[in-house]
Amino acid sequence: MHGIVLFAHGARDPEWARPFEAIRDLVRARRPEFPVELAFLDFMTPKLEEAVNGLAAKGVAAITIFPLFMAPGGHIKNDLPRIVEDLRKLHPGVPIAIQTAVGEVQVILDAIAGWVLAGVD
Amino acid sequence: MHGIVLFAHGARDPEWARPFEAIRDLVRARRPEFPVELAFLDFMTPKLEEAVNGLAAKGVAAITIFPLFMAPGGHIKNDLPRIVEDLRKLHPGVPIAIQTAVGEVQVILDAIAGWVLAGVD
Repeated sequence: MHGIVLFAHGARDPEWARPFEAIRDLVRARRPEFPVELAFLDFMTPKLEEAVNGLAAKGVAAITIFPLFMAPGGHIKNDLPRIVEDLRKLHPGVPIAIQTAVGEVQVILDAIAGWVLAGVD
Repeated sequence: MHGIVLFAHGARDPEWARPFEAIRDLVRARRPEFPVELAFLDFMTPKLEEAVNGLAAKGVAAITIFPLFMAPGGHIKNDLPRIVEDLRKLHPGVPIAIQTAVGEVQVILDAIAGWVLAGVD
């Protein structure tokens, strides 16, 4: 069983979480066998630690963290690896992988470019 | 002629702009007849004002701003409308529309969910 963490920045406005909740719900609907959790860097909960600890407690064999950030800045390059380093020590039996930011994924860039052009045609 | 502005947050790390440059290049490659400019809220240039002024100077009939933000927070709900209000006064002959954040677009949410599931299958 592979656990999924969708990791977002977080914001003061509770409505801000809506797109991430929608992605979580899409993933759950398509493949309910994968436990999937949201996690936030700041302002919102759960934090990454809680989400990973919760998945580990469920007995997942591995965890992959998907950073739902448009681009890799300091949060992805510095904060995220530092948090994950600590979590790996806490859960030595559960490999934790970190995926790239969404803006590094060609199929997502294509979808965004298609949306832009649909908006002006 | 319809001008396109791809509006992103900006960051201290110059590499951060790469996904937005990739989206701009995709849009340009698919439809070179639409003038398309990047613009940033903070840390990076050009700012939104410069991008819009540049498109207006090129004689575009209308401008659409696409906020390349994962979710609509304070920057999209407060900062962006305030800047655009001033720009509309400056360019009364050029309608300026603001699109939703990328995380409010179903086709993009679907692409993200698909990428997540491809990463754990």
